[in-house]
Amino acid sequence: MTAGTRGHAEAAPHTRFAGLLVDALGPDAVSTDPGTLQRYSHDYGHVAEPFLPLAVVFAGGVEDVQETLRLAGRHGVSVIARGAGTGVSGGAHATEGCVVLSLERMNRILDIRAEDEVAVVEPGVVNADLNDAVAPHGLMYAPDPASFRQSTIGGNVATNAGGLRCAKYGVTRDSVLGLEVVLADGTLIRTGRDTFKGVAGYDLTSLFVGSEGTLGVVVSVTVRLRYLSAEHRSVAALFPDIVAAAAGVVAIARQRVQPAITELLDSGTMAVIDTLHGTDLASRGGALLLVRLDGHGAVIEESLVRGALLELGASLSEAGDALADRLIEMRRSSRGDEQDDAYRVGEDVAVPRSRLVSYMAELREIAARHTVLLRIVAHAGDGNLHPTFWVEPAEGEAGLVRLNAALDESIRAALAAGGTITGEHGVGQYKRRWLAWEQQPEVLELQHRVKELFDPQGILNPGKAI
Amino acid sequence: MTAGTRGHAEAAPHTRFAGLLVDALGPDAVSTDPGTLQRYSHDYGHVAEPFLPLAVVFAGGVEDVQETLRLAGRHGVSVIARGAGTGVSGGAHATEGCVVLSLERMNRILDIRAEDEVAVVEPGVVNADLNDAVAPHGLMYAPDPASFRQSTIGGNVATNAGGLRCAKYGVTRDSVLGLEVVLADGTLIRTGRDTFKGVAGYDLTSLFVGSEGTLGVVVSVTVRLRYLSAEHRSVAALFPDIVAAAAGVVAIARQRVQPAITELLDSGTMAVIDTLHGTDLASRGGALLLVRLDGHGAVIEESLVRGALLELGASLSEAGDALADRLIEMRRSSRGDEQDDAYRVGEDVAVPRSRLVSYMAELREIAARHTVLLRIVAHAGDGNLHPTFWVEPAEGEAGLVRLNAALDESIRAALAAGGTITGEHGVGQYKRRWLAWEQQPEVLELQHRVKELFDPQGILNPGKAI
Repeated sequence: MTAGTRGHAEAAPHTRFAGLLVDALGPDAVSTDPGTLQRYSHDYGHVAEPFLPLAVVFAGGVEDVQETLRLAGRHGVSVIARGAGTGVSGGAHATEGCVVLSLERMNRILDIRAEDEVAVVEPGVVNADLNDAVAPHGLMYAPDPASFRQSTIGGNVATNAGGLRCAKYGVTRDSVLGLEVVLADGTLIRTGRDTFKGVAGYDLTSLFVGSEGTLGVVVSVTVRLRYLSAEHRSVAALFPDIVAAAAGVVAIARQRVQPAITELLDSGTMAVIDTLHGTDLASRGGALLLVRLDGHGAVIEESLVRGALLELGASLSEAGDALADRLIEMRRSSRGDEQDDAYRVGEDVAVPRSRLVSYMAELREIAARHTVLLRIVAHAGDGNLHPTFWVEPAEGEAGLVRLNAALDESIRAALAAGGTITGEHGVGQYKRRWLAWEQQPEVLELQHRVKELFDPQGILNPGKAI
Repeated sequence: MTAGTRGHAEAAPHTRFAGLLVDALGPDAVSTDPGTLQRYSHDYGHVAEPFLPLAVVFAGGVEDVQETLRLAGRHGVSVIARGAGTGVSGGAHATEGCVVLSLERMNRILDIRAEDEVAVVEPGVVNADLNDAVAPHGLMYAPDPASFRQSTIGGNVATNAGGLRCAKYGVTRDSVLGLEVVLADGTLIRTGRDTFKGVAGYDLTSLFVGSEGTLGVVVSVTVRLRYLSAEHRSVAALFPDIVAAAAGVVAIARQRVQPAITELLDSGTMAVIDTLHGTDLASRGGALLLVRLDGHGAVIEESLVRGALLELGASLSEAGDALADRLIEMRRSSRGDEQDDAYRVGEDVAVPRSRLVSYMAELREIAARHTVLLRIVAHAGDGNLHPTFWVEPAEGEAGLVRLNAALDESIRAALAAGGTITGEHGVGQYKRRWLAWEQQPEVLELQHRVKELFDPQGILNPGKAI
């Protein structure tokens, strides 16, 4: 290079690539504004190693996504697709020299076919917006992560998001019938189908669901909708302690009742709700079980649930009292909006349901042994726990060492109980260190070969998910 | 080779390979008996090109499967894994120079964890046997293909089998939490998890489900069980014609009732039941809708369903009359046990539910135009139709030409309606000619590359599924 000359060709590589993006997509679709780069450099997960993207692309349509991937492929630049960035495993964290591809502007609901109980949406549609749009038809989109008012369907697909209603209505994968996906080389493919049932060819749809943008970029999602129940009944049950409350979960199952929601909160979580909402839960019991029944049998199921819980000595909300409903909404906000950092980590293991009690006891022992603070909330219907571990930031490095030791032990204990390192948050970047504890080397290797097949250059969200 | 010498090394290649199998697995595990070879050379699907396998291996355990695949790989011999052989798409048909690997002897229920609502089974466990074993715990294994008294869980997994209860309880994929799979090179891997929820890594489990033994051989299946309803109510509704009956399906959905079973039978299917069971359905109406409600809301739902159907002028079975239940059992046997041949083909398309009526009208036009006989039964709740087309064998080639033209048109019409070529039977061998009508070249190509990744030598059930 000749010193003294200045221009396009001599700009720093990242400026050059941003320029190419602007040339291809127009200035409105590309930002290199420092504040924007910072804001789009991470999701809600803890950032271990911060990087700024070269640029943020705001795709307005499928062609923008294709063009971005083609350019990225040509120049060997990584692409991190993202929705609202509410993930908590760092799946949308920027990596060195990457471009972030935001799908927020692709937020049109393309079709609602009420008679078919199907909707087609762009990836940037917010979960709650889809639910608002289909509710007048008596329908709902079932997966409801705590972030449902912010998170997008595309992000939900990327992480195979769960939520509170999964034990009855399934996770994201169970509601996705088909996808349109842009592959690493810019090719647009259509997977799956428009019908409830269909077994033509391999289930590529499920392979993309939960793959965290490492195999392709989802640009359209066909979802199955479920009936929005006209009837629902909620029960709040206070127990002296978490073991008694977990016995309540088992008692409900013995009645062969499948609640829409079964949330279990320990005293620490109750205290958080008290602080946020001015309630007095923590003074009235040591654990809270929140149950919602829906469907045409809701009233019958409510009576079965109340009977079973009373028999265990629980203190129940009055029938019809709106408090139980309000508590469920409060519970939704008791974790979903928090940002993790090095000193506070919200975990996401799942264990076989019969192990809930013993696993929670182990968690308390682990926290005590490492002098780490702990509170627990669980989607108890499907054994998915969200323990939050934390230490005081003032403790510095010494606290972090204890925190990480406790986290590691909690994961080992979940696996020993027949569980998984992630029930619904995804592996992202944060949980990769634990993946080999769960999966055998042959499976890890196979997944990397699948990744290589779909993305031979390794430009799609590198270092995530597998 | 020296003429005149005889022995192991000079035996015909197929005799040699069978000999190697016997050496490795023992004589009890291998058969070359001509009757056995014949019986295991096909499933219930139509055989276009008959082949006999070199041998049939009856695996007694995982090691037998591994050893068979290792030997097959070393000698370039294809392996067709099979369960009970009740598939109807030729997915288990023998191909030239293959070995058939029967998993029927691996029929142990390895574990029932009632509190976790989970069971672990070997692939050869018959669907009905699993249901019998878990029923005392108040649980069921939900997917119920018509062949459930013969078909195995492994075969159900291979085809992602459906059945009558899918609209409410999902297909096989929705009940499979994890698998143990022997890969083409004999490696044993474990996919998925023991918990209801889990998102660690790619969803390899779903990739194997429905892959018809082309990516690996499933040797263990962890399934989620569902509550066996204590209450169930069945309603049989006679309508003047199929259009009126289909309006009944829509009316039930408008009540936001999700029946466990919604079967729609045309007059031809009613006549088959009359012949088999001595009923007089065909004289009393032109179409039959069979509905089963279950769960704690069954009685309430029954009343909603009866109200909606009466309003449409249907003639209903008396409340509590066992006839409706008996008719559902008769309907199960109205197709499941039949073997297709060149002159009679049972189809399996699915269409968006709102298209049921117009699609059935199209089917009748197609049949009339080609002078082909037709009867229809549908899992109406999820838009999955089983039209049976046939001609009189006495017609010979001329009849076959018309039959195949009608079949092709019925598939084109389903696709034009937004449907799929196979709702639950699988592509197998028989439907491969239609796959490219549904899937774009890029998807077909991608699937072949996935196949190549898992099975580089192409020894696993070649020429099937994709």
